[in-house]
Amino acid sequence: MSFTSSLSLTDLRGQYMNGSLTPREVFATIGERIEQYREHNIWIHTLTATELEPYFLQLEQADINALPLYGIPFAIKDNIDLAGVPTTAACPEFSYIPERSAFVVQRLIDAGAIPVGKSNLDQFATGLVGVRSPYGACKNSFDPSMVSGGSSAGSAVSVALGMASFSLGTDTAGSGRVPACFNNLVGVKPSIGLLSASGMLPACRSLDCITIFALHCDDANTLLAVAEGEDATDAYSRVNPFANQSRYYGTWQGMLRIGVLPADQLAFFGHSDYQASYEQTITALKEQGAEIVEVDFAPFIEAARLLYEGPWVAERYIATTPMIQDNPEAMLPVIQTIIGGGAKSSAVDAFQAQYRLKALRKAATSVLASVDCLLSPTAGRPYSIDAVNADPIKLNSNLGYYTNYMNLFDLAGVAVPTGFTASGFPFGVTLIGEAFTDRRLLSIANRIQQYFHLPLGKDQGAFQPTTVSPIANQQRIAVAVCGAHLQGQPLNWQLTERGGYLLEKTTSAPNYKLYALAGGPPFRPGMVVAQAGEGQTIEVEVWSLPTTEFGSFVAGIPAPLGIGKVTLTDGSQVSGFICEASGLVGAEDISHFGAWRAYLASK
Amino acid sequence: MSFTSSLSLTDLRGQYMNGSLTPREVFATIGERIEQYREHNIWIHTLTATELEPYFLQLEQADINALPLYGIPFAIKDNIDLAGVPTTAACPEFSYIPERSAFVVQRLIDAGAIPVGKSNLDQFATGLVGVRSPYGACKNSFDPSMVSGGSSAGSAVSVALGMASFSLGTDTAGSGRVPACFNNLVGVKPSIGLLSASGMLPACRSLDCITIFALHCDDANTLLAVAEGEDATDAYSRVNPFANQSRYYGTWQGMLRIGVLPADQLAFFGHSDYQASYEQTITALKEQGAEIVEVDFAPFIEAARLLYEGPWVAERYIATTPMIQDNPEAMLPVIQTIIGGGAKSSAVDAFQAQYRLKALRKAATSVLASVDCLLSPTAGRPYSIDAVNADPIKLNSNLGYYTNYMNLFDLAGVAVPTGFTASGFPFGVTLIGEAFTDRRLLSIANRIQQYFHLPLGKDQGAFQPTTVSPIANQQRIAVAVCGAHLQGQPLNWQLTERGGYLLEKTTSAPNYKLYALAGGPPFRPGMVVAQAGEGQTIEVEVWSLPTTEFGSFVAGIPAPLGIGKVTLTDGSQVSGFICEASGLVGAEDISHFGAWRAYLASK
Repeated sequence: MSFTSSLSLTDLRGQYMNGSLTPREVFATIGERIEQYREHNIWIHTLTATELEPYFLQLEQADINALPLYGIPFAIKDNIDLAGVPTTAACPEFSYIPERSAFVVQRLIDAGAIPVGKSNLDQFATGLVGVRSPYGACKNSFDPSMVSGGSSAGSAVSVALGMASFSLGTDTAGSGRVPACFNNLVGVKPSIGLLSASGMLPACRSLDCITIFALHCDDANTLLAVAEGEDATDAYSRVNPFANQSRYYGTWQGMLRIGVLPADQLAFFGHSDYQASYEQTITALKEQGAEIVEVDFAPFIEAARLLYEGPWVAERYIATTPMIQDNPEAMLPVIQTIIGGGAKSSAVDAFQAQYRLKALRKAATSVLASVDCLLSPTAGRPYSIDAVNADPIKLNSNLGYYTNYMNLFDLAGVAVPTGFTASGFPFGVTLIGEAFTDRRLLSIANRIQQYFHLPLGKDQGAFQPTTVSPIANQQRIAVAVCGAHLQGQPLNWQLTERGGYLLEKTTSAPNYKLYALAGGPPFRPGMVVAQAGEGQTIEVEVWSLPTTEFGSFVAGIPAPLGIGKVTLTDGSQVSGFICEASGLVGAEDISHFGAWRAYLASK
Repeated sequence: MSFTSSLSLTDLRGQYMNGSLTPREVFATIGERIEQYREHNIWIHTLTATELEPYFLQLEQADINALPLYGIPFAIKDNIDLAGVPTTAACPEFSYIPERSAFVVQRLIDAGAIPVGKSNLDQFATGLVGVRSPYGACKNSFDPSMVSGGSSAGSAVSVALGMASFSLGTDTAGSGRVPACFNNLVGVKPSIGLLSASGMLPACRSLDCITIFALHCDDANTLLAVAEGEDATDAYSRVNPFANQSRYYGTWQGMLRIGVLPADQLAFFGHSDYQASYEQTITALKEQGAEIVEVDFAPFIEAARLLYEGPWVAERYIATTPMIQDNPEAMLPVIQTIIGGGAKSSAVDAFQAQYRLKALRKAATSVLASVDCLLSPTAGRPYSIDAVNADPIKLNSNLGYYTNYMNLFDLAGVAVPTGFTASGFPFGVTLIGEAFTDRRLLSIANRIQQYFHLPLGKDQGAFQPTTVSPIANQQRIAVAVCGAHLQGQPLNWQLTERGGYLLEKTTSAPNYKLYALAGGPPFRPGMVVAQAGEGQTIEVEVWSLPTTEFGSFVAGIPAPLGIGKVTLTDGSQVSGFICEASGLVGAEDISHFGAWRAYLASK
């Protein structure tokens, strides 16, 4: 082998940049591994040397600095189009050769990534097991007797076994998360529409997502940035309303409030090892300073059942028409049974189920609003391939217990490994948040991965912490107030009407002066950084405001005040009121009171 | 009569406050008018003296200052519950007596409003005409031979004829807008969920809204503020993400970009008077300085057809079950025909229609993003009652041409009168925007109403302009930049990545100084208000940022800079960069360059 590192983006790019490695060398090694793991049934098609050559030639002409994914090998689930290569959806009779690559595939290739091949899946992405395929049951990377998880089976296993740096999966019910859990990977189930679904064969078109499997969160973050983007041709494509992702506030300790499931809503289906792993994960996070709160998971569980018991199966029927009508026997019997049921529901059933979903969604919204994220096991337990073959519907259904609701509720999820069972099988949890909290969840998952520091994939090397990024809180901003916006003061409503709440009462660093400005009502103070050696602490309150509301708050502040940065007594800086020097004309120095309230009381 | 003013909230409140009028006196006059207009078929039930007495007694104990709607009479469409009074939905056999008032009704009563009665409607709110009622065809307030518009027929006519200050309607297909047009009223069709639908009989539950009819926009604005609010018991209730409504920027001239329909997408169904009125409206707005642009209305028209031709009729079937199944002959034949069709569609049909809707919605999103609002006729033409009786389905359908798509697309709409035809019949337009632009649309409608200055309702007096409020642009904030954020400078991406665009290149007022701050890169200037008599103009660029993105922009600015207010050369103030005095240590006065770019060029 010409290299010994993992296929992680960061590892490969470093070697490409310093010239110690080429994409051709990487693909030579990948080719060897493809042969080595042939019996894992990972691939439906791998690119031939002839098919790969144009990619190599293209890169050999290119500037690596312009290509964030230069020479990065990736796997494509075989329900996503790669131009010129058959898309089978694991159903040979369904196969077609697309003229164009899927929108997301094309974005990745344009950024320098090279497809390794089309990976095996549960037929028509209907399943969470990875065994429902005429191309053979995809075997787990840690234990070939166990299921890989599905439906994005080969996509996950190919990354875990070092045949791709990352892979694309899809996720309607949990297909981008369950295989991540069973193969020690990060699985990003993005908000619906964040990655265009153009060129993906639909399962339930209103719910489908293209997903990303990666060895760690730094890779996933880079990949998400390349892959995302609005696609005018996909009706479900959406722009992330949080265009900027670089806003951080908060630390691990004391800032992270994680919702977990009460014991009676957990289900491990008799697997005490996974139960123990979940408990260990929570204990560890608690020890790290995260606040752990139990929340009601009941609406999530009920919604999960709607996915296969309700009218949404009609969407799978639509996606496989005309085959399901004209040639159903070309499908595996279990897939036929499931999708065939999709023609039975009426529009009345469909709307009634949507009403019920809406009510459950409202309950879920309350739960999610009470925490920074929700954390559940990604799957309740793993199963052996033999067990699933013996009881294909029920065991598959068990695997969706923690996943099926997610797209019905329009949420974002990141699956992240947090441990191994006593027998060495991987376990992981999923972080869950509202749509478009993807980056935020990734930054929390990153912290978790930094803490647990597990080896990558299956024997893909040690975890190399790269950036210790702070937890991104794109949702709220902390702002220090010192005058009319203090609790009980006349402008406090400007904070509360925007959903603001008090984070802490504290003081500034000891280098400020406080002035009572001329004019009013409302009477207002100005807080000003003192000259060196002067100044003192000033009483402030730190309030939390939704980021989306902060702008209108700032815009409403009249001169000479504004919002800049205020240093607190602990040395940290937060957004806070500043005052133009010109505004101090006629102002009274009231610093000796140390607090606006104390000054008011003296009058 | 004990008073001569209109029943407008502002008119009544002034007289209540100065003690020249009491609610009992107002209701005495209303009682006379109810008798006078009995043949208009406006009411299904009016409150008796006994039913009214508790409201009067309650108010006589209350503090008017605490009750924004003290003594304000209002009509309630008879598909919305008022405790203890039958809800019929214009179907006597369906009638029931609710124990509790609808959420919104209760909010209005709690604020001091008094119900006059339950108003007539197209049966089960299925219609846009107002003639589909066993309580008689509701007659137009301007011409009793003409339809009132529906389904919120009596609600509109009662306000136009001075029997209520405002009224509640409902709107699934256009029922809160068409009657406003035909009766010279403002009709607010709020974003779905902004007003709780608890206690409203559903038509299409996923699309229904409670609406407000008022004489003018100031009243409507007050009423919306009282009526709106999240309701945990209504799964479709939503919080307005723009909690604060007091952010204004922009003027009529040069700031308002209005989308209108191209000639070949307009339909006036042979009514040249309405066509002329629409053209006159646009001409007048253009003369006022609004920018008028033609946009593609085709996706709106196609979506409109989906409402009755697609599976959404199944929702009406659900809403009227079990009656539609067990006792359909209790319904009017036309209603039976329409709703009876709702059982026919399959879930496959429902999802396929939702896919098509999603694609049309995406096209509509692009259209709406290109303008401040869309402006269409509210209805293509009025019809006589006789004409509608002769051709009940087709003419009703014509009235939905400009309205049916709105709730399918989850938009907000405000209908506002803009003229009278040669024969004196009212005409109006609807302003259309994305969900939660309600207040913004109202502030534009307010400007339009101020300009056209039409008399109110039917003989309800002259329009009295109250506040000339600026157009509320809750969506974007203007920010003046003078340094590293200028076009082409290193931090300009912080504006562009947030969807910012350049509004104008101008200069500050002539009382600023510019400093090159110590430190960098990036090198940054500080703009500071000079002492009296000093200072000069400084080159600035004014950029427009989405309000939701402005907060993260502000939070990312390091000390000593911040965002406060900057005065421009024309005397206007916008948000802009300010600098703490403490940050000027080591800074160089570069004011004589007059511009950051000129200073950089000199280096």
